[in-house]
Amino acid sequence: MQIDDPDIIAEARAVFDRYEAALMANETATLDAIFWADPRTVRFGIGEILYGIEAIRAFRASVKAYAQRTQRQVRITTFGPDVAATHLEYERIGTGLVGRETKIMARIPGQGWRVVSAHVSLLAADDPGRVMGEVR
Amino acid sequence: MQIDDPDIIAEARAVFDRYEAALMANETATLDAIFWADPRTVRFGIGEILYGIEAIRAFRASVKAYAQRTQRQVRITTFGPDVAATHLEYERIGTGLVGRETKIMARIPGQGWRVVSAHVSLLAADDPGRVMGEVR
Repeated sequence: MQIDDPDIIAEARAVFDRYEAALMANETATLDAIFWADPRTVRFGIGEILYGIEAIRAFRASVKAYAQRTQRQVRITTFGPDVAATHLEYERIGTGLVGRETKIMARIPGQGWRVVSAHVSLLAADDPGRVMGEVR
Repeated sequence: MQIDDPDIIAEARAVFDRYEAALMANETATLDAIFWADPRTVRFGIGEILYGIEAIRAFRASVKAYAQRTQRQVRITTFGPDVAATHLEYERIGTGLVGRETKIMARIPGQGWRVVSAHVSLLAADDPGRVMGEVR
């Protein structure tokens, strides 16, 4: 298994960039097309737990606009020719809030690159469940 | 690329279960061994952004205990023989807080299965950066 083949990284980066542009413009059709149309697709959003493409598309349809964000770091690692892990550290414009988004992309046979899993969260300044400072 | 080969799912599940047991018992050596010993490994924690195995190990060394949790859902999908995406929805015991953990596992040549990326977050009851109810 070749890790970080430059050609594969470039392919994943193209999907990543297309997704980010579509998110900022709330182009629902593009966002829907990029996610794997399958019951196994998962999206853990800041305030959502969504299992399956139908739940994800229903969520997309409910969104009027996404909070605008700037990229602080993007890290992409690829595993073989068909899987990529993309990591985005972002800042919400005008809020100081920091977020993180992990996407797993796979080259689905007969379809091409799709996001098969996404996890978005804001960095917690304080963990409300922490009992002691050392408990994570 | 075969998706969800039962044998591969079973292998990933074994790593998942070993990790979960080690986390609950705070067995640092096991947690460290399961994560890919590489600068590209990423861990987005509830309150941490950690790039590279050294940062992750320093974090592990600082933890006195992890908050105990019960599993509500586990969903694992595998892509080919060497990559797995694992999703855990959990509840922190005694708090009512719901969390999510996504792990990407890869079979690293010469090493075996390793977690190459992890993202943990608590489900937000309210998104503090939301401008309108519809903005995500």
